[in-house]
Amino acid sequence: MSTAPIQTQYDAFKQLGLKLDMSRGKPAPEQLDLSSGLMDGLDGYIAQDGTDTRNYGGGVGIAEARALFGELLDVPAAQVVVDSSASLSLMHDVVVYSLLCGLPGHAPWLSSQPVTFLCPVPGYDRHFAICENRGIKMINVPMGEDGPDMDVVEQLVASDASIKGMWCVPKYSNPGGVVYSDQVVRRLAAMKTAAPDFRLMWDDAYRFHHLGEEKTGMPNILDACAEAGNPDRAFVFASSSKVSWAGSGVAALAASPANIAWWTRHAGIRSIGPDKVNQLRHVRLLQDKATVEALMERHRALLKPKFDIVLAQFEEYLGQVPGVSWTKPSGGYFIDLVTPPGVAKRTVALAKEAGIVLTPAGAAFPYGKDPEDSHIRIAPSFPSLDEIRQAAKGIALSLRLAISQ
Amino acid sequence: MSTAPIQTQYDAFKQLGLKLDMSRGKPAPEQLDLSSGLMDGLDGYIAQDGTDTRNYGGGVGIAEARALFGELLDVPAAQVVVDSSASLSLMHDVVVYSLLCGLPGHAPWLSSQPVTFLCPVPGYDRHFAICENRGIKMINVPMGEDGPDMDVVEQLVASDASIKGMWCVPKYSNPGGVVYSDQVVRRLAAMKTAAPDFRLMWDDAYRFHHLGEEKTGMPNILDACAEAGNPDRAFVFASSSKVSWAGSGVAALAASPANIAWWTRHAGIRSIGPDKVNQLRHVRLLQDKATVEALMERHRALLKPKFDIVLAQFEEYLGQVPGVSWTKPSGGYFIDLVTPPGVAKRTVALAKEAGIVLTPAGAAFPYGKDPEDSHIRIAPSFPSLDEIRQAAKGIALSLRLAISQ
Repeated sequence: MSTAPIQTQYDAFKQLGLKLDMSRGKPAPEQLDLSSGLMDGLDGYIAQDGTDTRNYGGGVGIAEARALFGELLDVPAAQVVVDSSASLSLMHDVVVYSLLCGLPGHAPWLSSQPVTFLCPVPGYDRHFAICENRGIKMINVPMGEDGPDMDVVEQLVASDASIKGMWCVPKYSNPGGVVYSDQVVRRLAAMKTAAPDFRLMWDDAYRFHHLGEEKTGMPNILDACAEAGNPDRAFVFASSSKVSWAGSGVAALAASPANIAWWTRHAGIRSIGPDKVNQLRHVRLLQDKATVEALMERHRALLKPKFDIVLAQFEEYLGQVPGVSWTKPSGGYFIDLVTPPGVAKRTVALAKEAGIVLTPAGAAFPYGKDPEDSHIRIAPSFPSLDEIRQAAKGIALSLRLAISQ
Repeated sequence: MSTAPIQTQYDAFKQLGLKLDMSRGKPAPEQLDLSSGLMDGLDGYIAQDGTDTRNYGGGVGIAEARALFGELLDVPAAQVVVDSSASLSLMHDVVVYSLLCGLPGHAPWLSSQPVTFLCPVPGYDRHFAICENRGIKMINVPMGEDGPDMDVVEQLVASDASIKGMWCVPKYSNPGGVVYSDQVVRRLAAMKTAAPDFRLMWDDAYRFHHLGEEKTGMPNILDACAEAGNPDRAFVFASSSKVSWAGSGVAALAASPANIAWWTRHAGIRSIGPDKVNQLRHVRLLQDKATVEALMERHRALLKPKFDIVLAQFEEYLGQVPGVSWTKPSGGYFIDLVTPPGVAKRTVALAKEAGIVLTPAGAAFPYGKDPEDSHIRIAPSFPSLDEIRQAAKGIALSLRLAISQ
């Protein structure tokens, strides 16, 4: 590491004229290449039960796609709906149907105001955008090393009937890489809620997206809820977005039979059915859990070195800087770089001047407001290994310069 | 035609043990075969502007897909958004975003109650289901031979500020096959509305779906609205559902720049982007307007004989029955069989007993209630020619039996 003044080092870095986008958790082209089987010609369009996948209909998805996601999510196929691309859209629509039409046996959420969601922070900006844009109030909940602070969560949901939902990324959370402990999962499933129509929005986006060798398990949230006497509490979301092709995957919703029936009824108003041909393509590519796990191992082989290089650069350039830390995730797509209070925004601005586009500071918080201005989300997946190496150094120099100013 | 008593004829028909579903306007397998190019291997995944269609992003659709639908809809590409499958979903989401978030410069529709839509009847049941399910009141408007009764429409929208929208299938309407006249289009574009955020939901589902030789034109609704000083009045919806594959097509929204910007912002909350790979597949298959028109000519060659046989059977078996009439559409997917008051439901029930599933009587009206119980929607597209011939006879016999009872 250079002993030159930090401004000099930063200026030298800026001179490189880098142009890198690390703002989003996009798979790299080499990862997309792993699913090039999707480019093959379609070998027949008839599903196992005789359905012509080209035509209208089949709102719950084709049987073999439901079976696949049932196996992947450890849920009976009958409790799985497979839809077109994007679990985010399924989450959005669950919120919209709940707001406008109400959950099974309950009035529309909108019939009393405010409607409130708990948001463990830092969290996923697109979750928070759904709430902000569709008129749902958000309350921050601190995230610990084993998940959201359950003492805070239990106290809030027990006392405030306006709290209708809570965002959860239970495994390798975005951006902190937190894995919920068994105890946190069971407390979420069992806690008393003042709102009888409270729902956990269980975004299982990174279920198979391991970076370490260890394949972290977790109690099945639907089973945990059922065992605790709250069978309808959780909606589980998953997709093939970061398994096959990010923009052209298939998405799945798993829930109790009552929630699935409710979803199917309301989604049937919106659409005559999902893209079943793409489901067929995916079933043929992904086949079963063993095939998916083997594919994810190849993703890991591409991603792990990128994370390692960021961690190594941060260690080299930031290891001795007081007040700076970062997460070392065992899965998922992000590293959360924690800065001393008040310098995250400035760091992101300096990085931008040096040619590195990061997620806006604050994005991981409701309303884009990080109260401490101290979190920066690092997304190492898309750029090449060499670019990542450079970018991580540039971010580190930007942070040190921001601290020094 | 037999001179046997109608009950005898009906019973003989019933003995055939037919099992036919004519309830929905589904393309026949031979029609889907016309787009078998969608089964070919994907010859590259990079769009014209360099976009990797496999990855996230591109909320407005790839440029070449926007250009294609711009040409098809006679609208600048910049005023077209191409989304994933299903224009119905685009309509649903326009309604949802308007209800929850409000149109550009206006409060959410939900902020005052009721929210009302005008519904020309008979009309498309799935339009009405969106309103009923999402809490929008519906008012029936009589449909004439050249479109909705504009005297009624103008009077209603001018006096009732709760009327925020109107469903329109301007060409070959579902189910009556009505083509709006130029004058109706211009009056809709120019009429004074008490609600400043009133919208025409312009479902151009059958724009290229001709049955006759004549290719009926129509004023461009977006131009007509702009010329009348109401540039933001119309949302135009279209899709490739009945052009390529019904369940795996691409859908398009065309509107003013302000409406497109509004849509893009709100749709971006729901999704990180549409299935761009499927858009690429479609652009390569459909290419341009001339290619689409040639493809639609092949659809016509398959569909026209089915419509002709229904019309011929109705003429033979119902031509002399007082109070019975039917539409002779020059395009679209449906025939509206008009019965004497009070016998449509009974006819559908008798047809079902004879093995023919029809759209429920009343479905073409808001809340499923045909005040006269006198409309039956006939969907001849899916079954084979021989099946259609039989089915049309069975429907005719069912109707005559219902009248005689």
